[in-house]
Amino acid sequence: MGTTGFEQHCRRTLADIQAQGRYRRFTALARDGVRYPHYDRASGSGPRDIVVWSSNDYLGMGVDPDVVEAGIAALRDHGAGAGGTRNIAGTSPLHDALEAELAALHGKEAALLFVSGYVSNQASLQTILTSMPGWICFSDEKNHASMIAGIKGAANGRPGAARCVIFAHNDLADLEAKLAAAPADAPKMIAFESVYSMDGDIADIGAICRLAKRYGAITYLDEVHAVGLYGATGGGVSERDGVAGEVDLIEGTLAKGFGCHGGYVAASAAIIDFLRSTASGFIFTTSLPPAVVAAALASVRAVRAQNHRREHLFERVAALRARLDAAGVPHLPTPSHIVPIPVGDAERVAEISRRLLDEFGIYATPINYPTVPRGQERLRLTPGPRHSDAMMDALVAALSELMAEASPARRQRDDVEAA
Amino acid sequence: MGTTGFEQHCRRTLADIQAQGRYRRFTALARDGVRYPHYDRASGSGPRDIVVWSSNDYLGMGVDPDVVEAGIAALRDHGAGAGGTRNIAGTSPLHDALEAELAALHGKEAALLFVSGYVSNQASLQTILTSMPGWICFSDEKNHASMIAGIKGAANGRPGAARCVIFAHNDLADLEAKLAAAPADAPKMIAFESVYSMDGDIADIGAICRLAKRYGAITYLDEVHAVGLYGATGGGVSERDGVAGEVDLIEGTLAKGFGCHGGYVAASAAIIDFLRSTASGFIFTTSLPPAVVAAALASVRAVRAQNHRREHLFERVAALRARLDAAGVPHLPTPSHIVPIPVGDAERVAEISRRLLDEFGIYATPINYPTVPRGQERLRLTPGPRHSDAMMDALVAALSELMAEASPARRQRDDVEAA
Ligand SMILES: Cc1ncc(COP(=O)(O)O)c(C=O)c1O
Ligand SMILES: Cc1ncc(COP(=O)(O)O)c(C=O)c1O
Repeated sequence: MGTTGFEQHCRRTLADIQAQGRYRRFTALARDGVRYPHYDRASGSGPRDIVVWSSNDYLGMGVDPDVVEAGIAALRDHGAGAGGTRNIAGTSPLHDALEAELAALHGKEAALLFVSGYVSNQASLQTILTSMPGWICFSDEKNHASMIAGIKGAANGRPGAARCVIFAHNDLADLEAKLAAAPADAPKMIAFESVYSMDGDIADIGAICRLAKRYGAITYLDEVHAVGLYGATGGGVSERDGVAGEVDLIEGTLAKGFGCHGGYVAASAAIIDFLRSTASGFIFTTSLPPAVVAAALASVRAVRAQNHRREHLFERVAALRARLDAAGVPHLPTPSHIVPIPVGDAERVAEISRRLLDEFGIYATPINYPTVPRGQERLRLTPGPRHSDAMMDALVAALSELMAEASPARRQRDDVEAA
Repeated sequence: MGTTGFEQHCRRTLADIQAQGRYRRFTALARDGVRYPHYDRASGSGPRDIVVWSSNDYLGMGVDPDVVEAGIAALRDHGAGAGGTRNIAGTSPLHDALEAELAALHGKEAALLFVSGYVSNQASLQTILTSMPGWICFSDEKNHASMIAGIKGAANGRPGAARCVIFAHNDLADLEAKLAAAPADAPKMIAFESVYSMDGDIADIGAICRLAKRYGAITYLDEVHAVGLYGATGGGVSERDGVAGEVDLIEGTLAKGFGCHGGYVAASAAIIDFLRSTASGFIFTTSLPPAVVAAALASVRAVRAQNHRREHLFERVAALRARLDAAGVPHLPTPSHIVPIPVGDAERVAEISRRLLDEFGIYATPINYPTVPRGQERLRLTPGPRHSDAMMDALVAALSELMAEASPARRQRDDVEAA
C-alpha cells in the first residue's frame, strides 16, 4: 500500500470529519499574562482583543504573580529543561517537594508526578490493571479519554488480560449490580471522576467507596476538574465530602485549577512506589522542567492556604447563571463551576462560536464529537474570578442574540411561514 | 481482594525488584543554570558540588541565555500554563510558530507538538496502526519503550488488529526477509530509531527506506537522540545522510538536544492533519505551556542556524574517548556521541555510580533493566560542549580506580590468590 495509500486514507478520514461538520480549526490566541481572561487574537478578521470563557485555568493561578515569579526564578537558576528522566539526572529537589506537597494536599502518604494528567491516568491505570491476571475495572461510562486509554490498554482481550465493565454514569445501582455479578475473588477497581467536565455533574464519592469496600474493589478517582476548587484546602470533592481517606488513588492535574502543567497521582507509599518503579509512561520520559515544577509548587501552596479565589469563583458562577436565567439563555443546571450551553448540532455550535469571536470578541469553544456524544454539542463556559460583571453582560447579550438567530427551530419556522 | 491485597502485591513486586539489585533511588540534583554541567546535591553525604555526565541536554541549550530569556519573556507575557487543550483555547501563536519551525527543520510540510517525546511516539504509532484493519508494524527489537507502548497498544491480538513483527536490531537482511514474507497488500510500517540511545549505534536510514519503498511500507523514524546534533542544521541523522525526504514520519523531542520539553512528529500535511484530528493523546490533554514553547522555539532556531555547538560536542566526545583509551577504561565503540561504559551487573553498576557521587562528586547514572537487558548494565556517559579537560581528567581517574576495585573478576582473582 505504501505512503500514497496511507495518505489517501488520511485524506478520506479528514473529508469524513469535515462532512460531519466536526473538523476542528484551532483558534490561535495569545493569553495576556496581566489582563487574563483577555487574549490577543493574532490573526483572522474581527476584533483582536478577546475575552475567553473557555479556559480551564479556573482560578487564574497561571497569571498569579507569585506563580509566574517562581517559574522565572527556577528558569534562571536551573535552565529550561530537566535534561533527563527522573532516574537519569532529571529529579530535582523541586520535584521531590512538589510530590510531598501533593501528597499532603490529599492526605496521602505519597504522590508521583507525570508529564500531564492524561499520562498520569493512562500510565497508572494501564500499569495497575496489568499488574496481576484477571483484573476487572468498573469504569463510569463518561470517564475521560485518558482513563479509557489506560483501561483499554490493559483490557486488550488477551487471555488473563483485564476486563472493562462499563457502568451507567453515576448510577450506583447499576454499579452495584455489576460488582455483585463479578467473581468475588477477582482483583477489582472502580475508576471514576469527581467533577465530569463536560456535563458539570459530580459523583457521590463516599457511596462509591462504600460499594468498593463491600465488594473488595480499589478506587481510582480523577479529580482533574476539582483540585484547587473544592474542599477547604483545594483537595477536591473528596476533601469537601470528607472521604479522601476512603479513595485509594486520587489523580489530578496541575494544568487546570493550578494553572500550570503536569499531572499526578496520590496514594499509599506502597502503591506510589510500585507505579514509580514499574510504569513505563513514568520511567521512560524526560521529567517536567524545574520551572514548571516550581510554578506549580507555588500555585499549590497558595491555593491550599487561601480560600478567597475559590469563594470568588463560585460567586462568579452564580452571577453568570443568574444573568443567563434572566435573559432566557438555556444552560444545563449543574452542581459545579461548569456552565454548559446546549446547542445540539455540530455546525450550529461552530457557527455560534465563530460569530461570538468575529462579531463580539468573545471566545467560547464549540464542544463536539468525540469530546461529547453526537447531538450533545455545546458551548462550555467556565466563569472565573477574573470575569467582571461587564464581561458577563456582554457575553449574555451576544449569546441571546446568536442563539435566537442561529436556532434551526426558528429557521424552520421561518421557512414554513415563508412557504 | 481489595486495597490490602493490591498493596501486598505492590510490596511483593518491590521486594523482587530490590532482590534483583535494580531498585531505583532517584538522586535529587539541582542543575546550576549558569555552571552546567555542575549540579547542587541537595542532600546525602559527600560532596555537594557535582559534575553530571548523564544529562541528555547534550548541547547545553537548556542553559543558553537566549533560550532562558525567551522562556522568561513568555512566562511574563502569557502566564505559566496553556489553560486548555489545543482546541479549547490552548493554541497560541507560539505553538503554531514552533510547529512551522520543526516542519522546516525536517523539510516536511507540517509538524505536530505533543507534551513529550514519549507521548508523540505512543499516540502517533497507536493512532496510525489502528487507522485501518490489518496493519503490520516491523519494529526494531531495540526500539524505545514509548514506541513499543504505541505499537503494542494497537497490536492487541483482537481480530483485525495490527500485528507487530520484530526484526533483529539494525539487521537489514532480517528486515527484508520479514517484509518479503508478509502479505503484499497489507498496510505496512517500519518503525525504527536513528541513534539508539543506550548502545549509541546508528541505523542505515537510507537502506531501510529503500526496503520500505520496495515492499510498500511507510517509515516511522525516532530521531530523539539525534535532533539538534546531526545534520547541517540539526535535523538529525536523516538530514546528515540526505534522506529526510524518504522518511514518512520523523519523530523528535525538544527535551534532549534542544534542552527544553515536549515532543513532535513531522510529516506530510495530510498525515499531520490526520493525527491532529484523531489522536487521543494529542486531543485530550492540555497543550504545552507557552513559556516551554517559546524557549523551545528559541532553541530550535539557534541550533538550526549555528554549527559551533555540534562541532564542539563531537570534539569533546573524541577527547573523552582518547582519555578513556589512554587509561585503559573499557568503553563501547560507537559512531555517535554516546559513550557507554559496560559493567554487566546491576549491583556493581549501582555501587560504582554511588561511589563516583559520594567520593568524587561525579554523577553518571547506572543503567539497568528494564532500560537495557539484564547482564548489559552500564554507565552511560554523554560528554558535551561544557565538559572541560579538567572534568574529563577527574572522571577518567575516578573511573579507573573504581572499575579496577569493584571488578568482580579482580575480586575473584584476589580470593583465589588468598586461598
Ligand atoms: C477528566 C480529565 N482527566 C484528565 C485530563 C488530562 O489532564 P491534562 O490536561 O493535564 O493532560 C483531562 C483534560 O485535559 C480531563 O478532562
Ligand atoms: C528513543 C527515545 N524516544 C523517545 C523518548 C521519549 O522522549 P521524551 O523524553 O521527550 O518523552 C526517549 C527518552 O526519553 C527516547 O530515548
